[in-house]
Amino acid sequence: MTGIDDLPVRDELRGKSPYGAPQLDVPVRLNTNENPYPLPEPLVERIAERVREAARDLNRYPDRDAVELRTRLAEYLSDTSGHEVGLANVWAANGSNEVIQQLLQTFGGPGRTAIGFEPSYSMHALISRGTGTGWISGPRNDDFTIDVEAAGQAIAEHRPDVVFITTPNNPTGNAVPRETVLALYEAAQAAKPSMVVVDEAYIEFSHGDSLLPLLEGRPNLVVSRTMSKAFGAAGLRLGYLAAHPAVVDAVQLVRLPYHLSAVTQATALAALEHTDTLLKYVEQLKSERDRLVHELRAIGYDVVESDANFVQFGRFDGEGGSHAAWRKILDRGVLVRDNGIPGWLRVSAGTPDENDAFLDAVRELKKEQSA
Amino acid sequence: MTGIDDLPVRDELRGKSPYGAPQLDVPVRLNTNENPYPLPEPLVERIAERVREAARDLNRYPDRDAVELRTRLAEYLSDTSGHEVGLANVWAANGSNEVIQQLLQTFGGPGRTAIGFEPSYSMHALISRGTGTGWISGPRNDDFTIDVEAAGQAIAEHRPDVVFITTPNNPTGNAVPRETVLALYEAAQAAKPSMVVVDEAYIEFSHGDSLLPLLEGRPNLVVSRTMSKAFGAAGLRLGYLAAHPAVVDAVQLVRLPYHLSAVTQATALAALEHTDTLLKYVEQLKSERDRLVHELRAIGYDVVESDANFVQFGRFDGEGGSHAAWRKILDRGVLVRDNGIPGWLRVSAGTPDENDAFLDAVRELKKEQSA
Repeated sequence: MTGIDDLPVRDELRGKSPYGAPQLDVPVRLNTNENPYPLPEPLVERIAERVREAARDLNRYPDRDAVELRTRLAEYLSDTSGHEVGLANVWAANGSNEVIQQLLQTFGGPGRTAIGFEPSYSMHALISRGTGTGWISGPRNDDFTIDVEAAGQAIAEHRPDVVFITTPNNPTGNAVPRETVLALYEAAQAAKPSMVVVDEAYIEFSHGDSLLPLLEGRPNLVVSRTMSKAFGAAGLRLGYLAAHPAVVDAVQLVRLPYHLSAVTQATALAALEHTDTLLKYVEQLKSERDRLVHELRAIGYDVVESDANFVQFGRFDGEGGSHAAWRKILDRGVLVRDNGIPGWLRVSAGTPDENDAFLDAVRELKKEQSA
Repeated sequence: MTGIDDLPVRDELRGKSPYGAPQLDVPVRLNTNENPYPLPEPLVERIAERVREAARDLNRYPDRDAVELRTRLAEYLSDTSGHEVGLANVWAANGSNEVIQQLLQTFGGPGRTAIGFEPSYSMHALISRGTGTGWISGPRNDDFTIDVEAAGQAIAEHRPDVVFITTPNNPTGNAVPRETVLALYEAAQAAKPSMVVVDEAYIEFSHGDSLLPLLEGRPNLVVSRTMSKAFGAAGLRLGYLAAHPAVVDAVQLVRLPYHLSAVTQATALAALEHTDTLLKYVEQLKSERDRLVHELRAIGYDVVESDANFVQFGRFDGEGGSHAAWRKILDRGVLVRDNGIPGWLRVSAGTPDENDAFLDAVRELKKEQSA
């Protein structure tokens, strides 16, 4: 039977598995940082309405430049960050993964390198591999903060073409201080004019502010965003970036023409009409996230300070480590994420009931382990 | 003012322009091979219905493996080709461009090469560049057919990792004979085990049959398809491929996780429910395409035999060449495509009225040029 290895696939793909969390049918799924709140019914109706309208013109290619959508995204960013951005500063694609892929095709690629400070969002490394960009695993402290000096040294030594800074960081949840981002931007420019990509996928859940204002006067800085989390629309696959207009022009050299379907554009536009409602869910989730942090500590777990809609907790250093703990929590009907960070697991903030179920499960686990 | 060239973009992108036909507001647009027939109203309603349902779960990631959609696409291919394919043989992405990108990331990429026989679909070369795959421009005869011996020699000489065969060919319209594809597959395997991608974007408009049955016993063969043309859904961005299951497994190593949104999957599934109706429009377009070929010849133009929903016609070898002719047709309110092939232009088959407007325009042009 012919398998992958019998095909002329690229050598670096041999023996690899596709990325993706296990999709298991479990009562409480807190493993992929999804927003637990379904879209409100009036928004569902508005999506159906806008898609119906778009479907009447579906025989035509979509707006290749997604002008209306980018305009609305720019307004959202301006309104929520206090930093004015316009159509020319914004670009959108099928999920922030495609945004990152386009950035790496433009500024990374064969003969070039990208760095991230790990553990962090693992797709940065995987999309680097997929675009032929060399990957450099930069350092992070034991408490998952970034040591500016060590990170700056790694940049000076490797002179990467693209620097990823995820804030709040995934899977650890902690935000990166503004001063750290500024110092790493300077280090990256000193080593080589490199692009610095600040991945703000979870920024709406942060106690602090977006770093969008740093775009001013920094043409090599990019802020990436997504509608998957704060807008409760993981199924929509809508990622976007804000940057200098030259960056937006540049990624258009590699974007697939008409990459963003008319139904995706219509659905995203409908969601943006309901921003205020959706951001109220974000407030609920922030308070639930804070409760998770508080309760997990009360139970006796170590918890990384979280500015995201998920919490990293541990430590599971006993027999079987974090994977055994993951399994035991799953046996109690709650799916969390094992990101392969020894001793730690990640839980997404769910509804109050879901979080209660999770807290019950880990409380029992603690008792069992202490027994 | 900072521009693209002030950014650290890849050298091969400097001075390039984004791909894409001019999007002009003209009464008759026959330039991008769109299907001129809007989706029937019952299908529009069904799309709204299925998307409404999907929107209720939009806070969750979509089915990463698009199982229902791939199953329905497999049924469509089996029903229309007489060659049985199943879920495991089919993969889908955001337009056939993304299918091709994934194939090149898997089987092409840095240090590897791809060949196409030009003029052909120009995205093959552009996506090769975007994925770091070296591009080889293979030969085509003056009448736009492929010379098996010359093409086979090019394959033997360059030993490409990926071979593209577009049939019916875009922009010229002619189909590639089955025997030619078979001979080139053999040549590609003899030179090196390479992947052969048969791009059948326009196959539903062909006088002949799909080459899907050739997949039997040929694990290095891929047939790519799209819903943009025959399904009248260019705005949907749904491309797919059929191949050995190992190929489907292999592209999952490079696909972005959850690349296909829930609304895209829902819309495509709705369209597939209306296959019979949509294929009736295809029959109308085939007959209009044949009328265009006949009339253009009657007017005195050279026309390439067409198996697609478009026709390449010429020759415009006088002053200004084909671009001047393109401009003059545009001045008469009809937008056709100048693909940069000296002496030739391409017109998409529109509705009978649109085609009449086009024929009037080129009739006048002919008189003017003969005067």
